[in-house]
Amino acid sequence: MSEAIVNIGLLATMDDGEGLMGLIRDAAVVIEDGRIAWVGPSSEAPASDTAFDAEGAAVIPGFVDSHTHAVFGGDRSAEFDARMSGAPYTAGGIRSTVAATRAASSEELAARTQRLLDEALRQGTTTAEIKSGYGLDVETERRLLEVAGRFTDEVTFLGAHVVAPEMAERRAEYVDLVAGTMLDTATPLARWIDVFCEEGAFDVAETRRILEAGRGAGLGLRLHANQLTQSGAAALGVELGAASIDHCTFLSDEDVDALAASDTVATFVPGAEFSTRQPYPRIDRLRDAGATWAIASDCNPGSSFTTSMPFCIALAVRDMHMTPSEAIRAATLGGAQALRRIDVGRIVPGARADLVLLDAPDPVHLAYRPGVPLVSRVWRDGVVTDRWEHRAG
Amino acid sequence: MSEAIVNIGLLATMDDGEGLMGLIRDAAVVIEDGRIAWVGPSSEAPASDTAFDAEGAAVIPGFVDSHTHAVFGGDRSAEFDARMSGAPYTAGGIRSTVAATRAASSEELAARTQRLLDEALRQGTTTAEIKSGYGLDVETERRLLEVAGRFTDEVTFLGAHVVAPEMAERRAEYVDLVAGTMLDTATPLARWIDVFCEEGAFDVAETRRILEAGRGAGLGLRLHANQLTQSGAAALGVELGAASIDHCTFLSDEDVDALAASDTVATFVPGAEFSTRQPYPRIDRLRDAGATWAIASDCNPGSSFTTSMPFCIALAVRDMHMTPSEAIRAATLGGAQALRRIDVGRIVPGARADLVLLDAPDPVHLAYRPGVPLVSRVWRDGVVTDRWEHRAG
Repeated sequence: MSEAIVNIGLLATMDDGEGLMGLIRDAAVVIEDGRIAWVGPSSEAPASDTAFDAEGAAVIPGFVDSHTHAVFGGDRSAEFDARMSGAPYTAGGIRSTVAATRAASSEELAARTQRLLDEALRQGTTTAEIKSGYGLDVETERRLLEVAGRFTDEVTFLGAHVVAPEMAERRAEYVDLVAGTMLDTATPLARWIDVFCEEGAFDVAETRRILEAGRGAGLGLRLHANQLTQSGAAALGVELGAASIDHCTFLSDEDVDALAASDTVATFVPGAEFSTRQPYPRIDRLRDAGATWAIASDCNPGSSFTTSMPFCIALAVRDMHMTPSEAIRAATLGGAQALRRIDVGRIVPGARADLVLLDAPDPVHLAYRPGVPLVSRVWRDGVVTDRWEHRAG
Repeated sequence: MSEAIVNIGLLATMDDGEGLMGLIRDAAVVIEDGRIAWVGPSSEAPASDTAFDAEGAAVIPGFVDSHTHAVFGGDRSAEFDARMSGAPYTAGGIRSTVAATRAASSEELAARTQRLLDEALRQGTTTAEIKSGYGLDVETERRLLEVAGRFTDEVTFLGAHVVAPEMAERRAEYVDLVAGTMLDTATPLARWIDVFCEEGAFDVAETRRILEAGRGAGLGLRLHANQLTQSGAAALGVELGAASIDHCTFLSDEDVDALAASDTVATFVPGAEFSTRQPYPRIDRLRDAGATWAIASDCNPGSSFTTSMPFCIALAVRDMHMTPSEAIRAATLGGAQALRRIDVGRIVPGARADLVLLDAPDPVHLAYRPGVPLVSRVWRDGVVTDRWEHRAG
């Protein structure tokens, strides 16, 4: 069975075509067995068993959200309310989520994750990474990775999110635990290892130790770095060959040059700057240096409780000074590069048929019409769906 | 027939109750003949013919969007793309929308407006004002007001948006036209008159002339003022008894004091600051002075092409430093005050049954979860709907 999507006003392939989005006008896409079989002008489309008429609307690749913390318990709206109202708020933070997460059953955690991913899917996300990191003990981290693995293969072990509260006075011991028993337990369940390298979390030496242990165990490397300060963490990530360095709010010129000379992707999460009132990083230096970047939601209950990649695109344009084309590319192809995936993020023959139909004539409307739900139809592996299901790969 | 909405986790009445949102916990609302008949704790709700279970979710009043330009032709996504990409862009602007609007039939214009209001309704807007202002000749302004009147009674005559392009060298003559023949034609079709008082549009003396003529014709007064400069326009609006002064990006301390001492509402449109990269006004001085304010979408194809009041709320919190409660109140009760309406914007007996069910336990999620479509059900005049229809009042 093949299905053609015809009469696409503007198709953003992120490959061959006009401009950074690889645009084809009056385009068609043919889907077969969940994969893209053909892409080109509507007038040249081969015969197919069924056809869907896009009526001149734009089609883009499904978003690849390469950074989420979508397995957690509890709610931090009161903390958000207090922070945004200018009241001092010292309680809670990550620790309140850790307590709620430890107390939740795996089924409760999975039900929440399902709701968040369904919500993300309806806004166009078809590939999502999920991190652990709210367990901070061997058994809860194992449970979080197991739950994450019910939804995606892009599972990241983040035992090194912060030092577990009960071990606050024994941080060396906690680093040993993460790089030892916790890693051993995580390895069969995860594809990636990640560390939050920042004042209040882990320093550069601790980060190196944990990432090297993860690499030794066969995991790919990711890194939360340079969110609050120019810490030297980004350079470490590049040195170790991390697939992605995430946040990158504060980069030195040396960091930018190191990123540009590497195949490490800089992943920006403007939703976190939005919800914590941090300054946004500007994209100019990375553009000038020729670095590769992605944008992701950072979906988490503390600092960025959004699943909306269109919202992140609008912020990246307005506040990071990406062009609309750069931002949309960063949310699709960029995310795929940050996950070292070649089967998603582009609309090319052989790729997964992950496609988003917009209620708009041009993908630029994702930034031009901020806050408006513009995703009108989502194909995932070639199937129209509004419910997230696990798929291999 | 009466319908009860029961098991509301948090009901934001904007009236009696906790805090600025007038919160009632574990609440119920009874609707009869399209109006609110009863509000209170679920356990005390009177009997009703039918019941809807909110399952612990939050309910708020429908949003009152007191500032839109939702009747226009054409698209300006290319202009937006160019502006956001840093390219110089001198063509187009309001003039391109004027040309496209003049060329469009009333049916084409109405079809676009219907789509925008349907979109707004699905995001929780139940009352909307609509301005003319892309016609700038007597016949097209008349058509725009007629089209706007198909959707709402809150119709605003904005012949004084800018000087008509063909009369650019004859601005005194254009002011005469607006305050004369155009106003005579508009008066039976409009409730309000508005002027864009700004460098490049109309000066304070011209604005006074037009507003006084409108007031003489029996129209209520609104004003676009202090968007780009401290122009003195806001003080004029207060002096003339305008219901609302909109934009207010740059207010002097005297403007703030004048607003606070009056019953004129300051209406903020942070979507315009977002899409033009202008600085956001901070709310602190208005709060300290005790002024009344609203937020609105400013939906228009040039500077704020959003219909999303939740998006405006999130911006008002993040970037204008409103508390979440202040922003949600400004988008409901505040909008009603800006339109001098007592039948909308609050959930109290006698008010229209305009209610929004959120996919969230607390209205604060509108700011805590930016970009996420959280509106799961909308009642308008007591009827669950996702299509905008005209209603009297």
